[in-house]
Amino acid sequence: MRVSELSRTSGVPVATIKYYLREGLLHRGETTSPNQARYDDTHVRRLRLIRSLVEVGGLPIGTVREVLAAVDDPGLPVHTMLGRAVYAVTPDIEDEHDHHHDRALGEVEAMLARTGWHVSQHAPARRSAVSVLARMHRLGQDRFTDDLDDYARAAERIAETDLAPVAGLHGREERAEAVLVGGVLGDALLAALRRMAQESFSAQHFPPTMLRESP
Amino acid sequence: MRVSELSRTSGVPVATIKYYLREGLLHRGETTSPNQARYDDTHVRRLRLIRSLVEVGGLPIGTVREVLAAVDDPGLPVHTMLGRAVYAVTPDIEDEHDHHHDRALGEVEAMLARTGWHVSQHAPARRSAVSVLARMHRLGQDRFTDDLDDYARAAERIAETDLAPVAGLHGREERAEAVLVGGVLGDALLAALRRMAQESFSAQHFPPTMLRESP
Repeated sequence: MRVSELSRTSGVPVATIKYYLREGLLHRGETTSPNQARYDDTHVRRLRLIRSLVEVGGLPIGTVREVLAAVDDPGLPVHTMLGRAVYAVTPDIEDEHDHHHDRALGEVEAMLARTGWHVSQHAPARRSAVSVLARMHRLGQDRFTDDLDDYARAAERIAETDLAPVAGLHGREERAEAVLVGGVLGDALLAALRRMAQESFSAQHFPPTMLRESP
Repeated sequence: MRVSELSRTSGVPVATIKYYLREGLLHRGETTSPNQARYDDTHVRRLRLIRSLVEVGGLPIGTVREVLAAVDDPGLPVHTMLGRAVYAVTPDIEDEHDHHHDRALGEVEAMLARTGWHVSQHAPARRSAVSVLARMHRLGQDRFTDDLDDYARAAERIAETDLAPVAGLHGREERAEAVLVGGVLGDALLAALRRMAQESFSAQHFPPTMLRESP
């Protein structure tokens, strides 16, 4: 297909497609004349992946470029490529260094020791978990310390659902897509399901009359 | 404390504090002279809440203003206020209307019927779940249909952990904070735990040698 049809099929404007081509996020089509190229389903698929990472995951284009460069580099072992992709799409949440932060750091390490998870000291998710928990403490929401193991158990079950099917896949791009879609879109799906479950829980346990303001 | 000390304690620049005061996100301090006001711990706490919603949740200031206006409006019943706050911090993910979207809509409705959750037809989370699932289908990742019930069960357990403690709280601001922090920071905490669990699962089930590229 020509670029105009690629644009219609993928819903991505022609100017954006050209930008992705220049930036190397999208592979070139087959040149059919000095000013024309032919595109196929692999281009449609890649454009949909980029859009989902940007629109659903809120990832900056620079991050998407970094992830896709790892996917597209045949010299990189698949294990390394998947690791880079997952690290790149993990938000790295910063935090001040005060006693709330030190407390949260100790709590996350203790939780990891209890679960027996194998997690690198350099994993951005480790820093993010500490930062979020420290912010919760700073806001006086200490109950999350006690709830940490409950959340960890839920996360473990979800991670298994996320990744078990990846073992059955072959080929580098398929695995990378499964991991990226599971990670970025999976977070959004779970967040939406959680909100619905919260709404339902509220409706059953806190009917409007119970939630009138305390006198 | 004066505005300079409020800035040091909260880590928010004076200019930003003044902006939040003008915009009504932060309540005024007690005026001590025509050009000075005195602030207290309620201001520190509110500033930390705003920062967390913006920096961790990535919420636009307009959304934060909307949420806090509901929290601060004493005329609004608590149930309504909490509902508005939760809806405002739920990402509303848009999507095209094609057969993938219709399929996802049917799947989410069937899942809701199976779980028996009470969720409004107008809940943004319902639309978001459909949009994310449709994007997964469009990317050829159909397995999430089968996994939907697993994710829903995990979401249900998490929602219970999220909200059960809110019943023990009194006062409108406390409840609102618990729900906002649990929702926005809770999503970030769970995402970080999920990434760590994924890393651990990968290390155990897909050691580097297993993930070499298929020939």
